[in-house]
Amino acid sequence: MNPRKIKLTIAYDGTEYHGWQVQPGLPTVQETLNQAATGLIGRDTHVHGASRTDAGVHALGQVGLIETMTSIPTENFPKALNDRLPDDIAILSAEDVHRKFDLMGDATCKLYRYTICTRRIRPVHEIRFCWHHPYPLDTEAMHHAAQCLVGKHNFRSFASAADQRESSVRTIFRCDVNKGTGERFDYIMIETEGDGFLYNMVRNIAGTLVDIGHGRWTPQEIKTMLEAKDRSIAGQLAPPQGLCLVWISYEKQII
Amino acid sequence: MNPRKIKLTIAYDGTEYHGWQVQPGLPTVQETLNQAATGLIGRDTHVHGASRTDAGVHALGQVGLIETMTSIPTENFPKALNDRLPDDIAILSAEDVHRKFDLMGDATCKLYRYTICTRRIRPVHEIRFCWHHPYPLDTEAMHHAAQCLVGKHNFRSFASAADQRESSVRTIFRCDVNKGTGERFDYIMIETEGDGFLYNMVRNIAGTLVDIGHGRWTPQEIKTMLEAKDRSIAGQLAPPQGLCLVWISYEKQII
Repeated sequence: MNPRKIKLTIAYDGTEYHGWQVQPGLPTVQETLNQAATGLIGRDTHVHGASRTDAGVHALGQVGLIETMTSIPTENFPKALNDRLPDDIAILSAEDVHRKFDLMGDATCKLYRYTICTRRIRPVHEIRFCWHHPYPLDTEAMHHAAQCLVGKHNFRSFASAADQRESSVRTIFRCDVNKGTGERFDYIMIETEGDGFLYNMVRNIAGTLVDIGHGRWTPQEIKTMLEAKDRSIAGQLAPPQGLCLVWISYEKQII
Repeated sequence: MNPRKIKLTIAYDGTEYHGWQVQPGLPTVQETLNQAATGLIGRDTHVHGASRTDAGVHALGQVGLIETMTSIPTENFPKALNDRLPDDIAILSAEDVHRKFDLMGDATCKLYRYTICTRRIRPVHEIRFCWHHPYPLDTEAMHHAAQCLVGKHNFRSFASAADQRESSVRTIFRCDVNKGTGERFDYIMIETEGDGFLYNMVRNIAGTLVDIGHGRWTPQEIKTMLEAKDRSIAGQLAPPQGLCLVWISYEKQII
Protein backbone atom coordinates (compact mmCIF):
# COMPACT_ATOMS: atom_id res chain seq x y z
CA MET A 1 0.00 0.00 0.00
CA ASN A 2 1.26 3.46 -0.88
CA PRO A 3 1.30 6.14 1.80
CA ARG A 4 -1.49 8.73 1.71
CA LYS A 5 -0.57 12.32 0.91
CA ILE A 6 -2.32 14.93 3.04
CA LYS A 7 -2.08 18.62 2.19
CA LEU A 8 -2.29 21.03 5.11
CA THR A 9 -2.98 24.78 5.08
CA ILE A 10 -1.03 26.33 7.93
CA ALA A 11 -0.99 29.76 9.62
CA TYR A 12 1.65 30.98 12.03
CA ASP A 13 3.08 33.93 13.87
CA GLY A 14 6.76 33.46 13.01
CA THR A 15 8.11 35.77 15.74
CA GLU A 16 9.32 33.04 18.07
CA TYR A 17 10.76 30.75 15.38
CA HIS A 18 14.01 30.54 13.48
CA GLY A 19 12.06 30.26 10.27
CA TRP A 20 10.23 27.34 8.70
CA GLN A 21 12.98 24.83 8.11
CA VAL A 22 14.36 22.39 10.70
CA GLN A 23 17.66 23.56 12.20
CA PRO A 24 19.32 21.44 14.89
CA GLY A 25 18.81 22.88 18.37
CA LEU A 26 16.64 25.83 17.28
CA PRO A 27 12.85 26.17 17.43
CA THR A 28 11.42 26.18 13.91
CA VAL A 29 7.88 25.98 12.57
CA GLN A 30 8.61 22.73 10.71
CA GLU A 31 10.13 21.03 13.76
CA THR A 32 7.13 22.06 15.88
CA LEU A 33 4.79 20.60 13.24
CA ASN A 34 6.88 17.42 12.93
CA GLN A 35 6.55 16.88 16.67
CA ALA A 36 2.78 17.43 16.62
CA ALA A 37 2.34 15.08 13.63
CA THR A 38 4.59 12.43 15.18
CA GLY A 39 2.63 12.68 18.44
CA LEU A 40 -0.65 12.25 16.59
CA ILE A 41 0.34 9.45 14.23
CA GLY A 42 2.61 7.61 16.63
CA ARG A 43 5.59 7.19 14.35
CA ASP A 44 8.23 9.59 13.05
CA THR A 45 6.36 11.91 10.67
CA HIS A 46 7.63 14.86 8.66
CA VAL A 47 5.71 17.90 7.47
CA HIS A 48 7.18 19.23 4.23
CA GLY A 49 6.63 22.89 3.36
CA ALA A 50 5.96 24.59 0.03
CA SER A 51 7.88 27.74 1.07
CA ARG A 52 10.86 28.06 3.37
CA THR A 53 9.90 31.23 5.20
CA ASP A 54 12.74 33.00 7.04
CA ALA A 55 13.10 33.71 10.74
CA GLY A 56 10.40 36.13 11.88
CA VAL A 57 8.29 35.79 8.71
CA HIS A 58 4.60 34.91 9.14
CA ALA A 59 2.06 32.84 7.24
CA LEU A 60 -1.70 32.85 6.81
CA GLY A 61 -1.61 30.12 4.16
CA GLN A 62 1.61 28.13 4.13
CA VAL A 63 1.07 24.71 2.56
CA GLY A 64 2.44 21.56 4.17
CA LEU A 65 2.42 17.92 3.11
CA ILE A 66 2.39 14.74 5.17
CA GLU A 67 2.97 11.30 3.70
CA THR A 68 1.60 8.69 6.05
CA MET A 69 0.15 5.18 6.34
CA THR A 70 -2.11 6.19 9.24
CA SER A 71 -5.83 5.44 9.08
CA ILE A 72 -6.79 8.63 10.92
CA PRO A 73 -9.50 10.34 8.82
CA THR A 74 -8.23 13.43 6.98
CA GLU A 75 -10.97 15.64 8.41
CA ASN A 76 -9.70 14.91 11.93
CA PHE A 77 -6.21 16.29 11.22
CA PRO A 78 -6.79 20.02 11.86
CA LYS A 79 -8.29 19.67 15.33
CA ALA A 80 -6.03 16.79 16.37
CA LEU A 81 -2.89 18.67 15.31
CA ASN A 82 -4.07 22.02 16.69
CA ASP A 83 -4.57 20.40 20.09
CA ARG A 84 -0.87 19.45 19.98
CA LEU A 85 0.42 22.78 18.63
CA PRO A 86 1.28 26.01 20.46
CA ASP A 87 -1.08 28.99 20.08
CA ASP A 88 1.09 30.66 17.43
CA ILE A 89 0.68 27.85 14.85
CA ALA A 90 -2.62 26.51 13.51
CA ILE A 91 -3.73 24.03 10.86
CA LEU A 92 -6.57 25.69 8.94
CA SER A 93 -7.52 22.71 6.77
CA ALA A 94 -6.45 19.28 5.57
CA GLU A 95 -7.26 17.48 2.33
CA ASP A 96 -6.22 14.30 0.54
CA VAL A 97 -4.18 14.87 -2.59
CA HIS A 98 -3.18 12.58 -5.46
CA ARG A 99 -0.03 10.51 -4.96
CA LYS A 100 1.58 12.47 -7.81
CA PHE A 101 0.97 15.82 -6.08
CA ASP A 102 4.22 17.82 -6.11
CA LEU A 103 4.24 20.30 -3.20
CA MET A 104 6.79 22.66 -4.73
CA GLY A 105 6.54 21.88 -8.44
CA ASP A 106 2.75 22.11 -8.71
CA ALA A 107 2.44 25.51 -7.00
CA THR A 108 1.37 27.97 -9.68
CA CYS A 109 1.07 31.21 -7.72
CA LYS A 110 1.93 32.62 -4.30
CA LEU A 111 0.79 35.83 -2.62
CA TYR A 112 3.10 37.60 -0.18
CA ARG A 113 1.97 40.69 1.72
CA TYR A 114 4.51 43.11 3.17
CA THR A 115 3.15 45.52 5.82
CA ILE A 116 4.71 48.86 6.80
CA CYS A 117 3.50 51.16 9.56
CA THR A 118 4.48 54.82 9.09
CA ARG A 119 2.99 56.04 12.39
CA ARG A 120 5.40 58.22 14.37
CA ILE A 121 5.18 56.06 17.50
CA ARG A 122 5.44 52.27 17.25
CA PRO A 123 2.11 50.39 17.18
CA VAL A 124 2.59 48.07 20.16
CA HIS A 125 -0.33 45.79 19.25
CA GLU A 126 0.92 45.21 15.67
CA ILE A 127 4.66 45.45 16.16
CA ARG A 128 5.14 41.71 15.52
CA PHE A 129 3.49 42.00 12.09
CA CYS A 130 4.87 45.13 10.46
CA TRP A 131 7.95 47.14 9.68
CA HIS A 132 7.68 50.23 11.84
CA HIS A 133 9.14 52.91 9.60
CA PRO A 134 8.03 56.27 11.03
CA TYR A 135 8.56 58.48 7.99
CA PRO A 136 6.15 59.61 5.26
CA LEU A 137 6.32 57.60 2.05
CA ASP A 138 5.08 58.48 -1.43
CA THR A 139 2.84 55.46 -2.04
CA GLU A 140 1.94 56.60 -5.56
CA ALA A 141 5.61 56.56 -6.55
CA MET A 142 5.97 53.15 -4.89
CA HIS A 143 2.97 51.72 -6.73
CA HIS A 144 4.16 53.20 -10.01
CA ALA A 145 7.61 51.61 -9.54
CA ALA A 146 6.03 48.28 -8.57
CA GLN A 147 4.29 48.09 -11.96
CA CYS A 148 7.73 47.89 -13.62
CA LEU A 149 8.26 44.56 -11.84
CA VAL A 150 5.10 42.92 -13.21
CA GLY A 151 5.81 40.37 -15.92
CA LYS A 152 8.50 37.82 -16.62
CA HIS A 153 11.93 39.14 -15.66
CA ASN A 154 15.33 38.09 -14.44
CA PHE A 155 15.15 39.13 -10.77
CA ARG A 156 18.83 38.61 -9.89
CA SER A 157 19.08 42.23 -8.67
CA PHE A 158 16.47 41.39 -6.03
CA ALA A 159 17.86 38.02 -4.92
CA SER A 160 20.23 37.73 -1.98
CA ALA A 161 23.60 36.32 -2.94
CA ALA A 162 22.87 33.14 -0.96
CA ASP A 163 20.40 32.09 -3.66
CA GLN A 164 22.27 29.60 -5.85
CA ARG A 165 19.37 28.51 -8.04
CA GLU A 166 20.29 28.33 -11.70
CA SER A 167 17.58 30.55 -13.09
CA SER A 168 16.62 33.91 -11.65
CA VAL A 169 13.73 34.32 -14.07
CA ARG A 170 10.34 34.58 -12.38
CA THR A 171 6.96 35.97 -13.34
CA ILE A 172 5.21 38.52 -11.14
CA PHE A 173 1.48 38.62 -11.90
CA ARG A 174 0.63 41.56 -9.66
CA CYS A 175 2.49 43.97 -7.35
CA ASP A 176 0.22 46.52 -5.68
CA VAL A 177 1.05 49.15 -3.08
CA ASN A 178 -2.05 50.05 -1.06
CA LYS A 179 -2.67 52.37 1.87
CA GLY A 180 -4.81 51.18 4.76
CA THR A 181 -8.21 52.71 5.44
CA GLY A 182 -9.93 53.92 8.60
CA GLU A 183 -7.82 53.41 11.73
CA ARG A 184 -5.15 51.81 9.54
CA PHE A 185 -4.61 54.91 7.38
CA ASP A 186 -0.92 54.93 8.34
CA TYR A 187 -0.28 51.37 7.14
CA ILE A 188 1.05 50.48 3.71
CA MET A 189 0.64 47.00 2.24
CA ILE A 190 2.69 45.70 -0.68
CA GLU A 191 1.01 42.65 -2.22
CA THR A 192 3.09 40.60 -4.63
CA GLU A 193 1.71 37.61 -6.56
CA GLY A 194 4.12 35.53 -8.55
CA ASP A 195 4.90 32.05 -9.81
CA GLY A 196 7.90 31.82 -7.49
CA PHE A 197 10.32 33.98 -5.56
CA LEU A 198 14.09 33.99 -5.13
CA TYR A 199 15.72 34.10 -1.70
CA ASN A 200 14.79 37.40 0.03
CA MET A 201 13.20 38.65 -3.20
CA VAL A 202 10.00 40.00 -1.63
CA ARG A 203 11.90 41.74 1.17
CA ASN A 204 14.39 43.20 -1.32
CA ILE A 205 11.50 44.50 -3.44
CA ALA A 206 9.77 45.96 -0.34
CA GLY A 207 12.97 47.67 0.81
CA THR A 208 13.63 49.10 -2.65
CA LEU A 209 10.05 50.39 -2.94
CA VAL A 210 10.43 52.08 0.47
CA ASP A 211 13.63 53.74 -0.77
CA ILE A 212 11.66 54.96 -3.80
CA GLY A 213 8.86 56.15 -1.50
CA HIS A 214 11.49 58.27 0.26
CA GLY A 215 12.63 59.77 -3.02
CA ARG A 216 16.03 58.08 -3.06
CA TRP A 217 15.26 56.99 -6.61
CA THR A 218 12.56 57.77 -9.15
CA PRO A 219 10.02 55.01 -9.90
CA GLN A 220 11.55 54.55 -13.36
CA GLU A 221 14.97 53.72 -11.92
CA ILE A 222 13.67 50.36 -10.72
CA LYS A 223 13.80 49.29 -14.41
CA THR A 224 17.52 50.06 -14.54
CA MET A 225 18.01 48.04 -11.36
CA LEU A 226 16.11 45.08 -12.82
CA GLU A 227 18.17 45.21 -16.01
CA ALA A 228 21.49 45.40 -14.12
CA LYS A 229 20.98 41.85 -12.74
CA ASP A 230 23.20 42.84 -9.81
CA ARG A 231 22.07 42.74 -6.17
CA SER A 232 24.36 45.59 -5.14
CA ILE A 233 22.33 47.95 -7.34
CA ALA A 234 18.93 47.62 -5.63
CA GLY A 235 17.71 49.01 -2.32
CA GLN A 236 17.73 47.87 1.29
CA LEU A 237 16.47 44.52 2.60
CA ALA A 238 13.21 45.10 4.50
CA PRO A 239 13.06 43.37 7.91
CA PRO A 240 11.31 39.98 8.19
CA GLN A 241 8.47 40.81 10.58
CA GLY A 242 6.57 42.78 7.92
CA LEU A 243 6.33 39.76 5.62
CA CYS A 244 3.46 37.28 5.47
CA LEU A 245 2.87 34.37 3.08
CA VAL A 246 -0.87 34.81 2.44
CA TRP A 247 -1.64 31.86 0.16
CA ILE A 248 -0.23 29.39 -2.33
CA SER A 249 -2.34 28.34 -5.28
CA TYR A 250 -2.20 24.99 -7.06
CA GLU A 251 -4.75 25.95 -9.70
CA LYS A 252 -3.53 25.65 -13.24
CA GLN A 253 -2.86 29.13 -14.63
CA ILE A 254 -4.80 30.03 -17.73
CA ILE A 255 -2.54 32.37 -19.70
CA MET B 1 10.15 74.67 43.87
CA ASN B 2 7.36 72.13 43.49
CA PRO B 3 7.87 69.09 41.27
CA ARG B 4 6.31 69.19 37.78
CA LYS B 5 3.48 66.80 37.02
CA ILE B 6 3.67 65.16 33.60
CA LYS B 7 0.75 63.11 32.27
CA LEU B 8 1.63 60.27 29.90
CA THR B 9 -0.62 58.35 27.53
CA ILE B 10 0.66 54.79 27.32
CA ALA B 11 -0.05 51.79 25.07
CA TYR B 12 1.07 48.24 25.77
CA ASP B 13 0.73 44.62 24.79
CA GLY B 14 0.23 43.13 28.27
CA THR B 15 0.98 39.51 27.26
CA GLU B 16 4.46 39.34 28.75
CA TYR B 17 3.65 41.25 31.97
CA HIS B 18 2.19 40.36 35.32
CA GLY B 19 -0.16 43.30 35.02
CA TRP B 20 0.39 47.01 35.53
CA GLN B 21 1.36 47.21 39.18
CA VAL B 22 4.86 46.63 40.57
CA GLN B 23 5.28 43.18 42.12
CA PRO B 24 8.65 42.18 43.56
CA GLY B 25 10.57 39.87 41.23
CA LEU B 26 7.99 39.87 38.43
CA PRO B 27 7.99 41.85 35.17
CA THR B 28 5.22 44.44 35.25
CA VAL B 29 4.36 47.37 33.00
CA GLN B 30 4.81 49.87 35.82
CA GLU B 31 8.23 48.53 36.82
CA THR B 32 9.38 48.65 33.19
CA LEU B 33 8.21 52.27 32.94
CA ASN B 34 9.82 53.15 36.29
CA GLN B 35 13.16 51.87 35.00
CA ALA B 36 12.87 53.82 31.73
CA ALA B 37 11.90 57.03 33.57
CA THR B 38 14.67 56.58 36.14
CA GLY B 39 17.17 55.99 33.33
CA LEU B 40 16.04 59.15 31.55
CA ILE B 41 15.81 61.46 34.55
CA GLY B 42 18.78 60.07 36.43
CA ARG B 43 17.14 59.67 39.81
CA ASP B 44 14.59 57.23 41.19
CA THR B 45 11.34 58.06 39.38
CA HIS B 46 7.92 56.43 39.61
CA VAL B 47 5.20 56.26 37.01
CA HIS B 48 1.79 56.13 38.65
CA GLY B 49 -1.10 54.60 36.72
CA ALA B 50 -4.77 55.58 36.49
CA SER B 51 -5.89 51.94 36.13
CA ARG B 52 -4.29 48.81 37.54
CA THR B 53 -4.73 46.48 34.59
CA ASP B 54 -4.41 42.76 35.35
CA ALA B 55 -1.87 40.28 33.99
CA GLY B 56 -2.36 39.83 30.24
CA VAL B 57 -4.66 42.86 29.84
CA HIS B 58 -3.68 45.42 27.17
CA ALA B 59 -3.89 49.18 26.81
CA LEU B 60 -4.14 51.65 23.96
CA GLY B 61 -4.62 54.62 26.30
CA GLN B 62 -3.52 53.96 29.86
CA VAL B 63 -2.69 57.21 31.67
CA GLY B 64 0.45 57.57 33.76
CA LEU B 65 1.77 60.39 35.90
CA ILE B 66 5.34 61.36 36.72
CA GLU B 67 6.24 63.92 39.40
CA THR B 68 9.72 65.21 38.77
CA MET B 69 12.10 68.16 39.26
CA THR B 70 13.86 67.47 35.95
CA SER B 71 14.28 70.27 33.40
CA ILE B 72 13.85 67.92 30.41
CA PRO B 73 11.21 69.51 28.11
CA THR B 74 7.86 67.71 28.24
CA GLU B 75 7.75 67.26 24.46
CA ASN B 76 10.95 65.21 24.64
CA PHE B 77 9.46 62.62 26.98
CA PRO B 78 7.75 60.29 24.46
CA LYS B 79 10.77 59.69 22.23
CA ALA B 80 13.28 59.64 25.11
CA LEU B 81 11.22 57.09 27.05
CA ASN B 82 10.33 55.01 23.97
CA ASP B 83 14.04 54.65 23.20
CA ARG B 84 14.42 53.08 26.66
CA LEU B 85 11.31 50.88 26.53
CA PRO B 86 10.80 47.43 24.97
CA ASP B 87 8.77 47.17 21.76
CA ASP B 88 5.60 46.12 23.59
CA ILE B 89 5.24 49.40 25.54
CA ALA B 90 5.05 52.89 24.02
CA ILE B 91 4.45 56.41 25.28
CA LEU B 92 2.00 58.04 22.86
CA SER B 93 2.07 61.55 24.31
CA ALA B 94 3.16 63.65 27.29
CA GLU B 95 1.68 66.86 28.65
CA ASP B 96 2.13 69.11 31.66
CA VAL B 97 -0.76 69.07 34.08
CA HIS B 98 -1.69 71.32 36.99
CA ARG B 99 -0.13 70.50 40.36
CA LYS B 100 -3.62 69.69 41.68
CA PHE B 101 -4.24 67.10 38.92
CA ASP B 102 -5.54 63.91 40.55
CA LEU B 103 -4.72 60.91 38.35
CA MET B 104 -7.41 58.64 39.76
CA GLY B 105 -9.89 61.12 41.22
CA ASP B 106 -10.15 63.39 38.18
CA ALA B 107 -10.82 60.60 35.65
CA THR B 108 -14.43 61.03 34.53
CA CYS B 109 -14.81 58.20 32.02
CA LYS B 110 -12.95 55.09 30.83
CA LEU B 111 -13.51 52.94 27.76
CA TYR B 112 -12.69 49.23 27.87
CA ARG B 113 -13.00 47.04 24.80
CA TYR B 114 -13.38 43.27 25.13
CA THR B 115 -12.68 41.27 21.94
CA ILE B 116 -13.95 37.75 21.20
CA CYS B 117 -13.10 35.66 18.14
CA THR B 118 -15.70 33.02 17.28
CA ARG B 119 -13.76 31.50 14.36
CA ARG B 120 -13.54 27.73 14.53
CA ILE B 121 -9.73 27.66 14.34
CA ARG B 122 -7.66 30.02 16.47
CA PRO B 123 -6.50 33.24 14.78
CA VAL B 124 -2.74 32.92 15.27
CA HIS B 125 -2.02 36.55 14.37
CA GLU B 126 -4.56 37.93 16.88
CA ILE B 127 -4.42 35.30 19.59
CA ARG B 128 -2.70 37.67 22.05
CA PHE B 129 -5.56 40.19 21.77
CA CYS B 130 -8.77 38.19 21.89
CA TRP B 131 -10.68 35.46 23.63
CA HIS B 132 -10.82 32.62 21.13
CA HIS B 133 -14.26 31.16 21.77
CA PRO B 134 -15.10 29.01 18.73
CA TYR B 135 -18.89 28.83 19.13
CA PRO B 136 -21.68 30.89 17.59
CA LEU B 137 -23.04 33.63 19.84
CA ASP B 138 -26.32 35.54 19.62
CA THR B 139 -24.93 39.07 19.53
CA GLU B 140 -28.38 40.63 19.46
CA ALA B 141 -29.25 38.95 22.75
CA MET B 142 -25.87 40.05 24.15
CA HIS B 143 -26.43 43.67 23.09
CA HIS B 144 -29.96 43.63 24.47
CA ALA B 145 -28.70 42.33 27.83
CA ALA B 146 -25.88 44.90 27.86
CA GLN B 147 -28.43 47.74 27.75
CA CYS B 148 -29.74 46.63 31.17
CA LEU B 149 -26.32 47.51 32.62
CA VAL B 150 -26.35 51.10 31.35
CA GLY B 151 -26.99 53.65 34.12
CA LYS B 152 -26.09 53.98 37.79
CA HIS B 153 -26.21 50.61 39.52
CA ASN B 154 -24.69 48.62 42.34
CA PHE B 155 -22.39 46.24 40.41
CA ARG B 156 -21.48 43.95 43.32
CA SER B 157 -22.69 40.91 41.31
CA PHE B 158 -20.01 41.70 38.72
CA ALA B 159 -17.12 42.44 41.10
CA SER B 160 -14.67 39.75 42.11
CA ALA B 161 -14.70 39.08 45.84
CA ALA B 162 -11.19 40.54 46.16
CA ASP B 163 -12.65 44.00 45.62
CA GLN B 164 -12.96 45.52 49.08
CA ARG B 165 -13.96 49.04 48.07
CA GLU B 166 -16.79 50.41 50.17
CA SER B 167 -19.16 51.33 47.40
CA SER B 168 -19.99 49.08 44.47
CA VAL B 169 -22.08 51.76 42.79
CA ARG B 170 -20.80 52.80 39.38
CA THR B 171 -22.32 54.44 36.32
CA ILE B 172 -22.05 52.80 32.90
CA PHE B 173 -22.62 55.36 30.14
CA ARG B 174 -22.57 52.90 27.24
CA CYS B 175 -22.24 49.14 26.74
CA ASP B 176 -22.37 48.07 23.09
CA VAL B 177 -21.93 44.64 21.55
CA ASN B 178 -20.77 44.93 17.93
CA LYS B 179 -19.81 42.41 15.28
CA GLY B 180 -16.74 43.03 13.16
CA THR B 181 -17.03 43.77 9.45
CA GLY B 182 -15.16 42.48 6.39
CA GLU B 183 -12.44 39.99 7.25
CA ARG B 184 -13.29 40.47 10.93
CA PHE B 185 -16.88 39.26 10.58
CA ASP B 186 -16.24 36.55 13.19
CA TYR B 187 -15.05 39.00 15.87
CA ILE B 188 -17.30 40.46 18.57
CA MET B 189 -16.35 43.62 20.45
CA ILE B 190 -17.95 44.64 23.73
CA GLU B 191 -17.30 48.32 24.42
CA THR B 192 -18.04 49.56 27.93
CA GLU B 193 -17.75 53.20 28.97
CA GLY B 194 -18.15 54.06 32.62
CA ASP B 195 -17.08 56.40 35.39
CA GLY B 196 -15.18 53.60 37.10
CA PHE B 197 -15.00 49.83 37.30
CA LEU B 198 -14.76 47.34 40.16
CA TYR B 199 -12.13 44.59 40.21
CA ASN B 200 -12.70 42.24 37.24
CA MET B 201 -16.00 44.00 36.47
CA VAL B 202 -15.47 44.30 32.70
CA ARG B 203 -14.33 40.68 32.41
CA ASN B 204 -17.26 39.48 34.53
CA ILE B 205 -19.66 41.45 32.32
CA ALA B 206 -18.03 40.05 29.15
CA GLY B 207 -18.21 36.48 30.47
CA THR B 208 -21.85 36.89 31.49
CA LEU B 209 -22.76 38.38 28.09
CA VAL B 210 -21.08 35.41 26.38
CA ASP B 211 -23.15 33.06 28.55
CA ILE B 212 -26.25 34.96 27.43
CA GLY B 213 -25.05 34.77 23.80
CA HIS B 214 -25.00 30.97 24.27
CA GLY B 215 -28.55 30.97 25.56
CA ARG B 216 -27.66 30.01 29.13
CA TRP B 217 -29.82 32.93 30.28
CA THR B 218 -32.24 35.32 28.62
CA PRO B 219 -31.11 38.94 28.20
CA GLN B 220 -33.63 40.01 30.85
CA GLU B 221 -32.07 37.76 33.49
CA ILE B 222 -29.06 40.08 33.69
CA LYS B 223 -31.37 42.48 35.59
CA THR B 224 -32.03 39.83 38.22
CA MET B 225 -28.28 39.24 38.52
CA LEU B 226 -27.63 42.95 38.97
CA GLU B 227 -30.31 43.20 41.65
CA ALA B 228 -29.01 40.17 43.54
CA LYS B 229 -25.74 42.01 44.41
CA ASP B 230 -24.08 38.61 44.69
CA ARG B 231 -21.07 37.57 42.59
CA SER B 232 -22.04 33.86 42.66
CA ILE B 233 -25.15 34.70 40.63
CA ALA B 234 -23.48 36.09 37.49
CA GLY B 235 -21.64 34.31 34.67
CA GLN B 236 -18.06 33.27 34.01
CA LEU B 237 -14.97 35.47 34.19
CA ALA B 238 -13.73 36.13 30.64
CA PRO B 239 -9.96 35.62 30.19
CA PRO B 240 -7.64 38.65 30.37
CA GLN B 241 -6.16 38.69 26.86
CA GLY B 242 -9.45 39.89 25.29
CA LEU B 243 -9.44 43.07 27.37
CA CYS B 244 -7.99 46.43 26.36
CA LEU B 245 -8.14 49.78 28.15
CA VAL B 246 -8.81 52.08 25.18
CA TRP B 247 -8.85 55.53 26.81
CA ILE B 248 -9.38 57.46 30.02
CA SER B 249 -11.04 60.85 29.86
CA TYR B 250 -10.46 63.74 32.23
CA GLU B 251 -13.08 65.98 30.65
CA LYS B 252 -15.76 67.18 32.99
CA GLN B 253 -18.97 65.31 32.30
CA ILE B 254 -21.97 67.47 31.41
CA ILE B 255 -25.00 65.59 32.68
